[in-house]
Amino acid sequence: MRNILVIGSGKSASYLIKYLLDKSESEQLYITVGDLSLSSAKKLIGNHPNANAIPLDVFDKNSRSEAIESADIVVSMLPARFHIEVAKDCIAFGKHMVTASYVSEQMQGLNNAAKNKGLIFMNEIGVDPGLDHMSAMQVIDRIRDKGGKIVLFESFTGGLIAPESDNNLWNYKFTWNPRNVVVAGQGGAAKFLQEGTYKYIPYNRLFRRTEFLEIEGFGRFEAYANRDSLKYQNDYDLNDVQTLYRGTMRRVGFSRAWNMFVILGMTNDDYAIDDSENMSYRDFVNAFLPYSPTDSVELKFRHALKIDQDDIMWDKLEELDIFSATKMVELKKATPAQILQKILMDSWTLSKDDKDMIVMYHKFGYELKGKHYQIDATMVTIGEDQTYTAMAKTVGLPVAMATLGILNEKIVTPGVQIPLSREVYEPILKELEDYGIHFKETEVPYLGYNPLHI
Amino acid sequence: MRNILVIGSGKSASYLIKYLLDKSESEQLYITVGDLSLSSAKKLIGNHPNANAIPLDVFDKNSRSEAIESADIVVSMLPARFHIEVAKDCIAFGKHMVTASYVSEQMQGLNNAAKNKGLIFMNEIGVDPGLDHMSAMQVIDRIRDKGGKIVLFESFTGGLIAPESDNNLWNYKFTWNPRNVVVAGQGGAAKFLQEGTYKYIPYNRLFRRTEFLEIEGFGRFEAYANRDSLKYQNDYDLNDVQTLYRGTMRRVGFSRAWNMFVILGMTNDDYAIDDSENMSYRDFVNAFLPYSPTDSVELKFRHALKIDQDDIMWDKLEELDIFSATKMVELKKATPAQILQKILMDSWTLSKDDKDMIVMYHKFGYELKGKHYQIDATMVTIGEDQTYTAMAKTVGLPVAMATLGILNEKIVTPGVQIPLSREVYEPILKELEDYGIHFKETEVPYLGYNPLHI
Repeated sequence: MRNILVIGSGKSASYLIKYLLDKSESEQLYITVGDLSLSSAKKLIGNHPNANAIPLDVFDKNSRSEAIESADIVVSMLPARFHIEVAKDCIAFGKHMVTASYVSEQMQGLNNAAKNKGLIFMNEIGVDPGLDHMSAMQVIDRIRDKGGKIVLFESFTGGLIAPESDNNLWNYKFTWNPRNVVVAGQGGAAKFLQEGTYKYIPYNRLFRRTEFLEIEGFGRFEAYANRDSLKYQNDYDLNDVQTLYRGTMRRVGFSRAWNMFVILGMTNDDYAIDDSENMSYRDFVNAFLPYSPTDSVELKFRHALKIDQDDIMWDKLEELDIFSATKMVELKKATPAQILQKILMDSWTLSKDDKDMIVMYHKFGYELKGKHYQIDATMVTIGEDQTYTAMAKTVGLPVAMATLGILNEKIVTPGVQIPLSREVYEPILKELEDYGIHFKETEVPYLGYNPLHI
Repeated sequence: MRNILVIGSGKSASYLIKYLLDKSESEQLYITVGDLSLSSAKKLIGNHPNANAIPLDVFDKNSRSEAIESADIVVSMLPARFHIEVAKDCIAFGKHMVTASYVSEQMQGLNNAAKNKGLIFMNEIGVDPGLDHMSAMQVIDRIRDKGGKIVLFESFTGGLIAPESDNNLWNYKFTWNPRNVVVAGQGGAAKFLQEGTYKYIPYNRLFRRTEFLEIEGFGRFEAYANRDSLKYQNDYDLNDVQTLYRGTMRRVGFSRAWNMFVILGMTNDDYAIDDSENMSYRDFVNAFLPYSPTDSVELKFRHALKIDQDDIMWDKLEELDIFSATKMVELKKATPAQILQKILMDSWTLSKDDKDMIVMYHKFGYELKGKHYQIDATMVTIGEDQTYTAMAKTVGLPVAMATLGILNEKIVTPGVQIPLSREVYEPILKELEDYGIHFKETEVPYLGYNPLHI
C-alpha cells in the first residue's frame, strides 16, 4: 500500500478523498485524513477499509512530523498560510507534496531543496489557480506546435450559483469564502495589457469596467479585472503578447450593483466601525451618508449614487434588507467589510438544495502565417449538492489526480511548481473528462481590441 | 547673549529668522542657522551681526551634537522625520526644543525624559497644526469660563493663492509641498462626528462630500474632510461634543474637478507606471481609460466620467494641457501621483510676483443655560512675496514667539507638548495681532446639522 496523508478535511476535500478512496483498491492506496476536527475527517471517509482519520494540529510539531514521516506523499488542503510547516517537514522526511494554493515566497524558497532531494512540490492545482493553468497551456502549446504566435490571452473564472438555484436579483450566492468576495479587488490598482498598452483600473472603477462573455446554453456573464493580470506572463511565456487579461466572472448586473458598496466605502476592511455591535443594518448604511435630521437613509443613498427609483439596483438593495432598522449588526469592532459580509450572508447563503457552478472562459488570439485566429474555450461544472459541490470537484479532482500521478511516476519533474507542463496537464485534463469536466472549444473570428489594425 | 540654534533654512524659515534677528538686540539673542546648504542659511541672515550660518548635516552626529550643545534652545524646521535625532541630543544636553511638526510617537516617547530634565519640547506650533490649536483653544476656554458647553467644533484651514494672483480655472496654485496636495486624503476613510453619529467617507467620495464656507470680503470656499477629525478630541477635552469635523479649504469647484483624477486612479501613489519616462501626458491619461483603436482619449475621458462638453470641469482639464501628445512625462518608474504632480506643476507653480494666502475658519457651537449659540472665527493672511509668504509667516512667527517665550520663561511647563494652554496661546495670539494675524469672531445663530432638534 502507498500511504497518502491528506491534511485538512474542509469544503474542498470531499471529491479529493472520494476519488482516492475509489482508487484505493486498484491503486493500492491507504489514505490518512488528518484534521483538527476528527469528526470532520471521519465524515469524509465513512468506514472505508483503506482509510483512517486522525486528529491533527498542524502546529503541533510532533504529531505533524509523525504523520508526515509515515506517508509517501502529503496533500495539504489547509489555508495557504499553513502550508509552509508541512512543506518543511516534507523536505526533511523526503516526501512529495501537493496543494491547490498559490505558491508563496516561502514555498518558492524550498525549490532548490526539493530539487536536490528529487521531490515534487505541486501547487496551484485546483480550479483557479489550477484548471485554468492546465486548460490554457494545453491550447497555447497546441497553437505553438503548429507555428502560431499567441497575441491575445484572456482568462476568466467564476464561482457562481447554478441556474436551477439562481433565485435572487443579484444572481449570486456565496459558494466559497464570502470574505474573499467582499474584499475582492482591494489592495491596489488592477493592471493588464490591451493591444500592447498597459492599463490600470483603481478599485473605485473596477466594477464599472467589465467585459461581457457569452457561454452557449448558459447565457451572458460579465467579468471584472483581477489585480495582476500579468502574474503568469513569464510562466506562460507570453512576453510578446499584445493583450493579457485575467478576470472574475459574475452574472451581468452584479458588478454595477456591487459598485454601490464600493463607492460608499462599505467594503473597506482597514478600520473598525465605532460601536458596530449596537448598530442596525440601517445605522451601518447611514454611517456612509451625510447626517440629516429629516431626510431618510433611502433618499440620501439614492441621491448620493444618483439612483432612480425604478432602477433595478434599488430592488437589489431592498432584497438584501439592508435598510432594516431592526436587524442588528451584532459584531464587535467590525470593519465595514465584515458587517457587509454579515448582511449579505443573510441573503446569499446556500439553501439546503442549492447547487453551485464553476464557469471558466479562455480566449486565445494567435497569428499564423500572417493571419489572425481566435479560439474560445469554455467550461461549466455544476455541483451535485452542498458536499459534492462544483468547487470541491474542480479543486479536488485535479489535486487527487496529480497526487496519484506523482505516486505512479507519471509526473516526475522535481521542484516547486505549478501545472504548466504536458506531463502534468495532459493526463489530468484527459481523465477529468471522464468526470464531466471538459472544455468546449470554438474557432471564432479574431477581433482583439483593434479589429481594423489601425 | 542667549544662543538660538535654528536647524533648516527652507521655505518656512524666512519670517522665523527675521523675527529673531529683529529682536536680537533688545532680547540679547545670537542666532545660528544650520543647514545642509550653507548658502541657503546665509541668504536668510544676510550680514546681521547677531547671527551666523553653519553647514549642518543632521545625520553627522559630531557636528550636530556640537551645534546643539552650544545652544540654549533648538528650533528644528527640518521635515518631521528628521526631528528625532535632534530631540535626543536636546535631552542629552538639556536643551529646550521647538518644532512646527506633528508629534510623532518617537517624539512623544521622550515626554518623561523631557519632564525629568525640566525641558520644554514644543511641537505643532506652526499654522496647521499650530495657529489652529491656539485660536481654537482660546475661544473654547472662553466659552467654558462662562459656563458654556461645546457641542460643535469644526475647523478648516487652506493654503491657497491670494485673490490678486488667482488667475487659473482651478483657483489654485502650489503654495506648499505639491506632493501633499496630490496624495491628500489617501490612506484610509475620513472619519468625523456629526450630531453624535460617526461618519465615514472613503477616498473616492472625499472630494464629493464638501462643505461651503463664506469669509467676508473673500467670498466662498469649500472644504473636504481630513482623515481623522477626531485626532484632538481628547486634547481639546471634547469627548461630549456632538459634531467634530476638521477639513481642508479650497476655492469652490476645486474638489469636484479634482475628483476626476481620484476616480480615474491618477492620484494613486502605490505602484509605478510601466515605461513612464517615454509617455506623453496623453499616454498617461490614456492608461486609465479603456483601449480603443479609434475613439479619442478626450471622448473616452468624457464618457467614463459623464462630463458634458460644456462643463467647466472640461475647461479645467484643457487648461492643464493634460491631453498633450507632445509634452513628455520624462520621470522614470513614476507613480501616477508623481506624474500628475509634474503635469500640475506646469500650471500651478507660483509666478515671480504671485502671493499666497492662508485661510482658517472655526465654528464653535455651544450650549449655555439651555440655549444654543455659535461663534465663527475666521483668519486670512496674504503673503508679501515668494520669500515672505503667508505660509512662512503663519508657520514661522508662532515658532519664533514660542522660542522667545521659552527663553524668557513665559512658557514654563516642561514636557513634550502642543500649544493648548493659556500660557502659550495668550501671549502668542496677542503678539501675532501686531503682525496682522488676527481672528475675526462673529456671533451667528447656532444651526448645527439639526436645527429643529428632531
